[in-house]
Amino acid sequence: MPSGRRRRIAVAQLRCYGVLAMDKKSANTMWGGRFSAGPDAIMEAINASIGFDKRLASQDIAGSRAHAAMLAATGIIKAEDAAAIDTGLVQVLEEIEAGTFTFSTALEDIHMNVEARLSEIIGAPAGRLHTARSRNDQVALDFRMWVRAQCDAAISGLDALISAFLAQAEAGADWVMPGFTHLQTAQPVTWGHHMLAYVEMFARDRSRFEDARARMNECPLGAAALAGTSFPIDRHMTAQALGFDRPTSNSLDTVSDRDFALEFLGAASICAMHLSRFAEELVIWSSAQFRFVRMSDRFSTGSSIMPQKRNPDAAELLRAKLGRILGATVALFTVMKGLPLTYSKDMQEDKEQVFDAADNLILGLAAMEGMVRDLTANRAALEAAASSGFSTATDLADWLVRALNLPFREAHHVTGALVKLAEDKGCDLADLSLDEMQKIHGEITQAVYSVLGVQNSVASRTSYGGTAPENVRAQVARWKEGL
Amino acid sequence: MPSGRRRRIAVAQLRCYGVLAMDKKSANTMWGGRFSAGPDAIMEAINASIGFDKRLASQDIAGSRAHAAMLAATGIIKAEDAAAIDTGLVQVLEEIEAGTFTFSTALEDIHMNVEARLSEIIGAPAGRLHTARSRNDQVALDFRMWVRAQCDAAISGLDALISAFLAQAEAGADWVMPGFTHLQTAQPVTWGHHMLAYVEMFARDRSRFEDARARMNECPLGAAALAGTSFPIDRHMTAQALGFDRPTSNSLDTVSDRDFALEFLGAASICAMHLSRFAEELVIWSSAQFRFVRMSDRFSTGSSIMPQKRNPDAAELLRAKLGRILGATVALFTVMKGLPLTYSKDMQEDKEQVFDAADNLILGLAAMEGMVRDLTANRAALEAAASSGFSTATDLADWLVRALNLPFREAHHVTGALVKLAEDKGCDLADLSLDEMQKIHGEITQAVYSVLGVQNSVASRTSYGGTAPENVRAQVARWKEGL
Amino acid sequence: MPSGRRRRIAVAQLRCYGVLAMDKKSANTMWGGRFSAGPDAIMEAINASIGFDKRLASQDIAGSRAHAAMLAATGIIKAEDAAAIDTGLVQVLEEIEAGTFTFSTALEDIHMNVEARLSEIIGAPAGRLHTARSRNDQVALDFRMWVRAQCDAAISGLDALISAFLAQAEAGADWVMPGFTHLQTAQPVTWGHHMLAYVEMFARDRSRFEDARARMNECPLGAAALAGTSFPIDRHMTAQALGFDRPTSNSLDTVSDRDFALEFLGAASICAMHLSRFAEELVIWSSAQFRFVRMSDRFSTGSSIMPQKRNPDAAELLRAKLGRILGATVALFTVMKGLPLTYSKDMQEDKEQVFDAADNLILGLAAMEGMVRDLTANRAALEAAASSGFSTATDLADWLVRALNLPFREAHHVTGALVKLAEDKGCDLADLSLDEMQKIHGEITQAVYSVLGVQNSVASRTSYGGTAPENVRAQVARWKEGL
Amino acid sequence: MPSGRRRRIAVAQLRCYGVLAMDKKSANTMWGGRFSAGPDAIMEAINASIGFDKRLASQDIAGSRAHAAMLAATGIIKAEDAAAIDTGLVQVLEEIEAGTFTFSTALEDIHMNVEARLSEIIGAPAGRLHTARSRNDQVALDFRMWVRAQCDAAISGLDALISAFLAQAEAGADWVMPGFTHLQTAQPVTWGHHMLAYVEMFARDRSRFEDARARMNECPLGAAALAGTSFPIDRHMTAQALGFDRPTSNSLDTVSDRDFALEFLGAASICAMHLSRFAEELVIWSSAQFRFVRMSDRFSTGSSIMPQKRNPDAAELLRAKLGRILGATVALFTVMKGLPLTYSKDMQEDKEQVFDAADNLILGLAAMEGMVRDLTANRAALEAAASSGFSTATDLADWLVRALNLPFREAHHVTGALVKLAEDKGCDLADLSLDEMQKIHGEITQAVYSVLGVQNSVASRTSYGGTAPENVRAQVARWKEGL
Repeated sequence: MPSGRRRRIAVAQLRCYGVLAMDKKSANTMWGGRFSAGPDAIMEAINASIGFDKRLASQDIAGSRAHAAMLAATGIIKAEDAAAIDTGLVQVLEEIEAGTFTFSTALEDIHMNVEARLSEIIGAPAGRLHTARSRNDQVALDFRMWVRAQCDAAISGLDALISAFLAQAEAGADWVMPGFTHLQTAQPVTWGHHMLAYVEMFARDRSRFEDARARMNECPLGAAALAGTSFPIDRHMTAQALGFDRPTSNSLDTVSDRDFALEFLGAASICAMHLSRFAEELVIWSSAQFRFVRMSDRFSTGSSIMPQKRNPDAAELLRAKLGRILGATVALFTVMKGLPLTYSKDMQEDKEQVFDAADNLILGLAAMEGMVRDLTANRAALEAAASSGFSTATDLADWLVRALNLPFREAHHVTGALVKLAEDKGCDLADLSLDEMQKIHGEITQAVYSVLGVQNSVASRTSYGGTAPENVRAQVARWKEGL
Repeated sequence: MPSGRRRRIAVAQLRCYGVLAMDKKSANTMWGGRFSAGPDAIMEAINASIGFDKRLASQDIAGSRAHAAMLAATGIIKAEDAAAIDTGLVQVLEEIEAGTFTFSTALEDIHMNVEARLSEIIGAPAGRLHTARSRNDQVALDFRMWVRAQCDAAISGLDALISAFLAQAEAGADWVMPGFTHLQTAQPVTWGHHMLAYVEMFARDRSRFEDARARMNECPLGAAALAGTSFPIDRHMTAQALGFDRPTSNSLDTVSDRDFALEFLGAASICAMHLSRFAEELVIWSSAQFRFVRMSDRFSTGSSIMPQKRNPDAAELLRAKLGRILGATVALFTVMKGLPLTYSKDMQEDKEQVFDAADNLILGLAAMEGMVRDLTANRAALEAAASSGFSTATDLADWLVRALNLPFREAHHVTGALVKLAEDKGCDLADLSLDEMQKIHGEITQAVYSVLGVQNSVASRTSYGGTAPENVRAQVARWKEGL
Repeated sequence: MPSGRRRRIAVAQLRCYGVLAMDKKSANTMWGGRFSAGPDAIMEAINASIGFDKRLASQDIAGSRAHAAMLAATGIIKAEDAAAIDTGLVQVLEEIEAGTFTFSTALEDIHMNVEARLSEIIGAPAGRLHTARSRNDQVALDFRMWVRAQCDAAISGLDALISAFLAQAEAGADWVMPGFTHLQTAQPVTWGHHMLAYVEMFARDRSRFEDARARMNECPLGAAALAGTSFPIDRHMTAQALGFDRPTSNSLDTVSDRDFALEFLGAASICAMHLSRFAEELVIWSSAQFRFVRMSDRFSTGSSIMPQKRNPDAAELLRAKLGRILGATVALFTVMKGLPLTYSKDMQEDKEQVFDAADNLILGLAAMEGMVRDLTANRAALEAAASSGFSTATDLADWLVRALNLPFREAHHVTGALVKLAEDKGCDLADLSLDEMQKIHGEITQAVYSVLGVQNSVASRTSYGGTAPENVRAQVARWKEGL
Repeated sequence: MPSGRRRRIAVAQLRCYGVLAMDKKSANTMWGGRFSAGPDAIMEAINASIGFDKRLASQDIAGSRAHAAMLAATGIIKAEDAAAIDTGLVQVLEEIEAGTFTFSTALEDIHMNVEARLSEIIGAPAGRLHTARSRNDQVALDFRMWVRAQCDAAISGLDALISAFLAQAEAGADWVMPGFTHLQTAQPVTWGHHMLAYVEMFARDRSRFEDARARMNECPLGAAALAGTSFPIDRHMTAQALGFDRPTSNSLDTVSDRDFALEFLGAASICAMHLSRFAEELVIWSSAQFRFVRMSDRFSTGSSIMPQKRNPDAAELLRAKLGRILGATVALFTVMKGLPLTYSKDMQEDKEQVFDAADNLILGLAAMEGMVRDLTANRAALEAAASSGFSTATDLADWLVRALNLPFREAHHVTGALVKLAEDKGCDLADLSLDEMQKIHGEITQAVYSVLGVQNSVASRTSYGGTAPENVRAQVARWKEGL
C-alpha cells in the first residue's frame, strides 16, 4: 500500500480513536484555547509564578509580619497600623492553611496575592506594609527561608537514615560478607562495616547541609529593590526575628544571589548519588543470583502471576533520583550563567527546580530509611559468598610478610602460586596440605592455617577504620553517642 | 546577646509568626501526616505514577482500542467482546475529557485506572483486553505517541515562529544595523539578514524534530512484557492503525528503549539555546543604552512608579528556558546510565522530565513568536549605530585589494593607518580628504568614497549568503515558497 | 597536641617530603613562573588556542587550498599566485605531518601558524590568500570538517560493533537465558535476541550520526567575517571541492553556529548511554554470582595475588564514558547559552569538549567491539538461570487463555495459584502433577506441559520482534544483508 | 550534475588536498595504527592512566615516604630499609622534576611507575614499601592531596581577586552609576557598591572552599585494598605527617569515596558562575553603546584593520568557563551514579575532569584579577547613565511617604503621575516646577528637590548594606581588616 494512503488511513483511525481529537484539543488548549485569547494568555502563562510560589506563603507572611513590627518599632509606621497589618496577615495565613484562599493568576505571585487580600481585610493600612521594601528583597527572603527549612528537613531525614544504618551495623557487626572491587569478590568484610560505610557518606552529607545552612543564614530583608533604602530601618531586628544570624551586607548582591539554592542543590546531588549507590547494591543483592538480602514487601512490588517475584521498585526509583536532582542543579546553573546584576526575571526559574529537588530528596531519604530498617540480610548466603574465590589470599600474603619476613612483592608472588595450585586442584586454600604449601615455599608452617578462614580474616583487620567486628562495634558506639 | 539566647528568641518569634508551625505542618504532611501511616504511605508516594501519567490517557485508550480491534480481527478474542471494549473505552475517554473520572492512586498508573473503570462499565469482557499485552509495551506505546505528538507541536510552533521572523526580514530587508562580533561593532549588516539568521537556526531545529519523529515512529505494541508473545497477533495492523510506519523489531529493545525521549530532549535543547540567544539580544537591544528595539507592552512588564520602564520579562524567561530543558536532558541521561535490560522502574522517572521540557518548549515558541511579531525596530538607532565605529573599514580594505590590487595583508595595513588618522582627527573615514588619504597611499582615488557608506557596504555584499538586501529578499522568497 | 602545633609539624614534614615544594613550584609555574611575567602570560594562557586547534591542521590547509583555487578560478587572484600558495600549503602540511613544524603560541591559532609559515616559504603571494575570507569562516569550516569526519568514524565504529553483536546473535540464536525486568528473572529469552537488542540501539545511533552529518554538510567558507563579501567569489565551487552538499545560506548564522557540534554530542551521548548499559550487564554477568559470561584476558585485568580474579576493567571504563561525553555536551550548551550574534570568543571553548568526546566515543566503540568479539557466553549457566524462578508462568497463563478461553485476567489468577502451589512444594511448575493442576482449575489438560519448558517457551514467541530462534535468525539475515 | 558524480569529484579533490589522507592516517592511528596491534592496543589506550595521573607524582612520593617512615616506626619494616626507600624516592622525585624520568604506559599508572624506578635504584628493599597498603588507598590519598592543594590555590586566587575588587571599590566609593534590574536602569548606585557585591560572592566562594577542605582533610592511607590491614600500622602518624586532621574512619568508604572531588567541583562551579556574571557585565559595559568601562590592552584583542576595536576576549572566555567546569561536575556525578562499593574502575575517570576544572578555575581567577586591576571606569558615562530614566523616582516616592506620610502604595501612584508628566514634557523630574508638582499633589514642598539628584539619592541609602558611599567605605575597611 502506498505510504501516503497508509498515512491517511492511520490518521482517520486515530481520529476515530479520539487520540487526534484529544491532541487537537490539547493543542487548542495551548495555542487555540488558552492562547486563543492571543499573546496576553501566552504572556500570563509564561510570566505568572503564583502556580508554584504559593508554596512560599508561610515564609512570605512571616517576613511581612517581622517587617511590619520593625517598621513600627522604628517609628516608620504607626503602631496601630502595624497591629492591623499583623492581625490581617494572620487571617490570610489561616485562610491559606484552611484552603479557603483564592489565588489569582492575574496578581502574578504570592506577594501580590497576599497583599491584595490583606488590603481587602484591613483596608488602608495595608498600603503601608510595603514601605522600605521591594518584591526583590521579599522573594529573596521567602525563598531563602524555604531553602533553609529544607536544609533542616534534610538533616532530620539524614539523622533517621543514619540511625537505620547503625541498627543494621550493630546487628551484623560480625556477619561476614564479600568485600567487592569491580563487583568481584576481593576480601571478606563484615556486614556492619559495609553499613557503616554509608553512615560515613550520609554523615558527610549532613555536615554539608549544615555548612550550607550556616552560610545562607543572612537576612535579605531591607535590601529593597537593589540599593537599600533611606528609611531608618533596623535590619538586625528583622534578621533576628526571622532566625537569621545577621542581615546581608550588600544590597546589590542580596537581590542577585542564588548561591544558597545552588549550594543546596550541590549537597543534595551528592546525597542522591549516595542513595543511588546503595540502591544499586540492593537491586543486585536482591537478584536470584545473589540473594544477599530480602527487601520487605512494603518496598517491593510483586506480580500476580509470579508470586515469587519481588521487584525492588523503590530501590530502582531511588537509584534514579540523582538524575532528577542533578538535572535541577544543571538547570539552575545554566539559568544563572552570565546574568548581569541585579535581578533578572530569569531567576524566577529557580523555584520549581529547587522545590522538585528538595521534595524528591526528602522523600528519597524517607524511603531509604524505611528500606534499610526493613531489610533482611541473608547471613548464610553472605558468608558462603565471602568464603569462595580465595578471598583470604591477601591474608596469606600478609602472613608471609609478617611471619617469614618476606618482602611484600615476594609474598605476593608466593601467594599467587599457592592460589594457582588450589585452583588447579579445585579446592580452597585451607584445603592445601602443609606439604603442598611447603613445596611452594619451604618456610611455611602450620600457623598459616589460622589466617585462611574468613572469620579470622575479618577479626584480624583491626587497623583504624578496618573491618574487624570490634572496630565496627566501637564505631557504632561512637556514632550513637554523637547523634 | 549570646547566640544561644538569640536563637531561642528567634525560634519563639518564628513560631509566633506561623512559619515554624507551617514548616512543622508541612513536615508532618510529608513525614508525620501523609507518611504517618508509615512506610506504606512513603512507598505509595514514591511509587505511584498516576499523578503525572494521566496525561497519557488519550494515548492509552487509543492504543487499547487498536489492540482490541486487532485481537478481534485475528480471532484471539470475539468480535462482540471487542465491540464492548471499544464502547467502554470511548466512555472512559469521555469521562476523562469531561473531568468526571476519578483517578485512584491505589491503582498506581493510568493503565490500571483505565482498565479498572472499563471493568466497571462492561464487566467480564474487560478481562480479555490485556491478552497478548503487558504494561511494559503499553507504557512504551503511550509515551512514544505522546512524544511523537510533541514533535508535531514543536514543528507547528517552529513554522509559526519562522513565519514571524520572515515577516520581520521582509519588512527590513534593507534596514542597516551593526553586525557585531564580541558585542563590538564590526561591519554593517541588514536587519533582514539578522532575522534570517534565526530562520536558519529554527529551520534546522524543525528538521531535527522531523528526523526524530521519523526515527521514533515504530510501534512498540506487541513486544508484550519483554519477549513477544505466542498469540498470533498482527503487529503491522496495530502499527498502521496508530499511525506508525512499522512495528519495532526487537521486543527486548522495545520495552527498554527511551532513545526517542532523549532525542526529543536533545533537539529541544538546541532549539531552546537558539531562543536564549535571541532573547539575550532582545534584552540588550531593549536597554536604554542600545534602544535598538521596542518590545510590545504585551511582552513587557512596567512599573507603576516608573512608567517609562519596560522590563523585557518574557525575553528573560525565554533566555532561562534552556536551563530547564537541558536539566531535563541531563536528568534522563543520568537515569538511563548503566541500566541493564529490560524494564527497570528507574525508567518511570522519564515522563515528568519530558512533560516539563515539552510544555516549556512549546510555550517558549509561542511566546517568542508573539514577541517577534510585536517587535518594533528603531531604524534610526540601528543605522546610527551601524555608521559609527569605522564599520566600513573592511570595505575600504577590500577596495584597496580590488581597485589597487594590493595583497590583502597590505590592504589591511593601509586601512589601519587610515582609520588611525580618522580616529586622531575625530572624524569618520568618509570625512578624510582625498589628499589625506593619498598621503597614506598614493594610488587611492576618488572612487574610494563610494564604499565608505553603510548603505553601499551592505549593498555590495552579494556573495551567496551575504547581507545585501537583494540576497535577503531572495532568501525570504525561497523560505516563503518552502513553507 | 594543640592543632596549631600539629599543623606546623605537618607542614614541615610535607616540605621535607617535597610535596609542598612541588606544590609551590607548580603554583609558581602558574602564578609566579609562567604568570610572573604578569598579565601578559595569563592572557596568553587563556587566549591562545594553538595548543588544541592544531588538530585542525589538515582541515585548515585543505580549506585554504580550495579557497585559493577558487580565488584563481574567479579571477580574484592570479593563477600563478594560487599555484604558489598551493605548493606552499602542501609543504606546510608535510612539515606538520612529519612533526618538523614549530607551532608558535604567539601566533595564537592554527590559522595564523599556517599562514605565517606559508609566508616564510612563498613570500608575497601568501598575503593574497586571506582575500574574501576571515578567521571566522575559516574556523567554522575547519571545525565542521573535523566533526563531519568524526561522524564518519563513528559510523564505521558502529558498523564494526554491530557486526560483532550479529556474530554473537547468530551463534547463540537458540541459547536460552533469563530475560530480566528489575534484574529479576521474568521470562526466558534467547541470547541471540538479547544481542539483537543492542544491534537495534547501535543502528539507531548510526542513523543519528548520518542525519547529523547530512544536516551539517553545508560549507561555511565565504561567510567572511560575518556579512559575506563584495568579492565575486564562487561559494558553490569551494563547497563542492570540500565535499559539502552546498554552501550555507546566511553569513551571520554561519559564523555563529555550533549546532553541528551539539548535535554530534547529543548523538554521541545516546550512543555512550547504550555502551553503558551493555557494560553494566557485562560487569554483573561477570560476577561470581552470575557467571553468565567470561570476559577475555585482553579486556580484563587480573591480580598477581588472586589469579582467579578477572576484573572487567574495560567494561567499567565504558560504563563511565557516558559521564565524560554528557559532561562535554552540558559544557557546550552552557557556553552557547545566551550568546548574542555573531562570533564571540566564548565559542573557542567548543573544540576541546568535542575533541575529547569524539576521541572517547571512537575508542569506546573499538573497545566494545573487541569485548563483544571476545566474549564467551556460559550456556549452561544461562539456561539454568532461565529455567529457575517459574519463568514460564506467563506461558502457562497464555495457554489457559488460548486453550481454555479464559479471560486474561482470570488466567493470570489461576497461574498465580499454580505457582504458589509449586513454590510451597519446592518444585517447578512442570513438576506438578496433572491432578494437582486440575485441583486449581478442572479443565487443564496434559497439553499444558508442552509450554512449561524454557525451550518451548522461547520457540513459541514468534510474534514479530519476539524472541523465537527463528525470528532471531531472520533478523540476523536481514541485518547482514543491510550492512 | 548528479550528486553521486559530484560526491566522487569532491572525494578526489579532498584526497588531493590531503585532508582525506590525513583523516585516513589519523583513523589509522586510532584503529589501524595504534590499534593495528589489535585489542591489546585498544585495551592499553582505554586502561592506562599514566598519561594523566603523572600529575600526582609529588603526592604519590610524599605518601610513600610517610608510609615507609611509619612502617619503620612501628617495626613493620627495618629502619635501614625505610632509609633506603626514602633516599630512593627522593631521587625519583628529583628525576621527575628534572624531566629525566621516563614514564611507561605498560606500567599503567603513576604508582607502578614510581615503584618500578625505585626498585631499579635501591633493589630489594623497594619490595617492602607496599606492605600494608594497596593501590586503592594510595590513589585515594594522592588524589585527595591534589584536590586539597587546589582548594588552597583557589583560596589564594580568591584572596587576590577580592583584593582587586576592593581596590576598585575604594577608588570609586562615591562614583554614581545606574543600578539595573532586567538590564533597565532602576536606581542610582555607587561603583564601589557594585564592586563590593562581587566581593560578597567571591568571599562566599572562599568559605566554600574552606569548608570543603576541612571536610576532605582525612587521610585515606591505611584503608588498604578495602578492608584495612592486620599489620599494626599507625594511621594517625601518617595522617599527621601528611597534614591531615585525622585518618578516615571506614576503609570501605575510604576507597569508594569521591565526595571531596564532587564538592570541589560544586564550589568551583558556583565560583565560575560568579566569574561569568561579571564577565557578562564587562562585555556589555565595553560595547560602543554602553562605554561604561575600558578594558586594558592586555586583556583585549584588537584588529589590525580597526584599531579602535577592542574585543573583550578574556572576559568572553571567562564567561564560558562555567560551561567547562559544570560539564566536569556533571561528568563525575554521572560516573559515580549507581556504583556499588567499593572501588570500580569507572572511578579512574575522575581525575581528568577535576584536573581540567581546577586548571581553568585557577587560570580564570588569575585572569579576572588582572582584568579588574586594569579596569578603567568611565565616570562620566556612568553618571550620565545613572541620571537618565527617572532613576530617582523611588526616592521621590519615599519622600512622599516620609514627608507627607502618604501610604506607600499611594506615594507610588503620585510618583507615577509626576514621572508621566515629566516624560510628556521631555524633561527630568528635577525640571518640573513646584507648581506643576503641586497640581499632582498639593502638599509637595520645595524640599522635594533635595532627593531628585543622583548624588543625593545614593547618599541617602544608608540602611545596612545600602549603596551610600559611607557604607561602601565602611565595608571596604571591614574587608581589608579581615584579609
